[in-house]
Amino acid sequence: MKQATRQITVPTRGKGLYECTAQAERFVQDTDITTGLLTAFIRHTSASLVIQENADSDVVADLNDFFGRLVKETDTWYRHRAEGPDDMTSHIRSALTQTSIAIPVHQGRLAFGTWQGLFVFEHRASPHQRKVALHLQCQ
Amino acid sequence: MKQATRQITVPTRGKGLYECTAQAERFVQDTDITTGLLTAFIRHTSASLVIQENADSDVVADLNDFFGRLVKETDTWYRHRAEGPDDMTSHIRSALTQTSIAIPVHQGRLAFGTWQGLFVFEHRASPHQRKVALHLQCQ
Amino acid sequence: MKQATRQITVPTRGKGLYECTAQAERFVQDTDITTGLLTAFIRHTSASLVIQENADSDVVADLNDFFGRLVKETDTWYRHRAEGPDDMTSHIRSALTQTSIAIPVHQGRLAFGTWQGLFVFEHRASPHQRKVALHLQCQ
Repeated sequence: MKQATRQITVPTRGKGLYECTAQAERFVQDTDITTGLLTAFIRHTSASLVIQENADSDVVADLNDFFGRLVKETDTWYRHRAEGPDDMTSHIRSALTQTSIAIPVHQGRLAFGTWQGLFVFEHRASPHQRKVALHLQCQ
Repeated sequence: MKQATRQITVPTRGKGLYECTAQAERFVQDTDITTGLLTAFIRHTSASLVIQENADSDVVADLNDFFGRLVKETDTWYRHRAEGPDDMTSHIRSALTQTSIAIPVHQGRLAFGTWQGLFVFEHRASPHQRKVALHLQCQ
Repeated sequence: MKQATRQITVPTRGKGLYECTAQAERFVQDTDITTGLLTAFIRHTSASLVIQENADSDVVADLNDFFGRLVKETDTWYRHRAEGPDDMTSHIRSALTQTSIAIPVHQGRLAFGTWQGLFVFEHRASPHQRKVALHLQCQ
């Protein structure tokens, strides 16, 4: 096998970070490879990907709050407001973070540091089912 | 074939987003692969890459305006101003977005969500010819 | 050979950008490949990766200053302050930049533009040994 693909769905319940490390790890383990590269790609422009600390939940809460302060829903200059005050802010927050992230696989595991985890960063206020395409490059 | 490469040039006419989805799709189609991973890498530090909504042009206009408000040309503390007020701001805007983006290829197509497109984000005021290196990993 | 991996360590001495282009180039040259894709992944959530101009050192100094102004240590609303005022700010600065970056390899060299270099962006005030996992995809 040279490569493998899988699409995972991450349910969200409003703005914030939702960890999907376990789903990504499971995909790697199912392929039974030892060395490779996992790429995660989120198929949306109002949610994004980040790797962050998964030990203290205050980190992801603070991160979400920072973006709420940086990209204000109360600003009135946005042209694109079709879906409400969290519409354009979601696109901006996505552009400021990542759409794709690549993680090397070493000895059959994602080469994460001790407290690293992969998160979907939801920028919309309402619940969504976010699709993340995974691609695994093997030998 | 295991991999393929191509360099595309995206002409820009001042600050803003310039879609290059069609050029990336064409490269994938020319290789005739079904499953793989496309990586786009912009060979500049004053322009960057983003994946954004390509349905409503207000999105990319608002995105450009947001970065203009966040990284102000009127700030006087920049040391690096050799090429004018949009010089250092361009480097900062690039750092806040992406230099490389990877997109899985599924059934011969980029695995984009419905309204996703790939854009060069030009941060300089004057026109440029921006070079994007494409790399396609296949079987 | 289909792929190669290496972990490099980048010593840092407080906030700022530390170039590691030479270490990445050496890894590519040691593998003796001509075409491929190098992925760099930083195994931390309080330091990140950026590609920036490596000609004028004012660029990286200004970039560091911008992030200091954008993500203020003097803000009092952060919940996560266990390791001091530069703790949560480091996570935010990391999220605003990159955890992984992919660079095509062309004719045995990283396909950088003229003044591009790869940097570890240290966000903590104290010195660290930052680990960057490199993955090289070949034929």
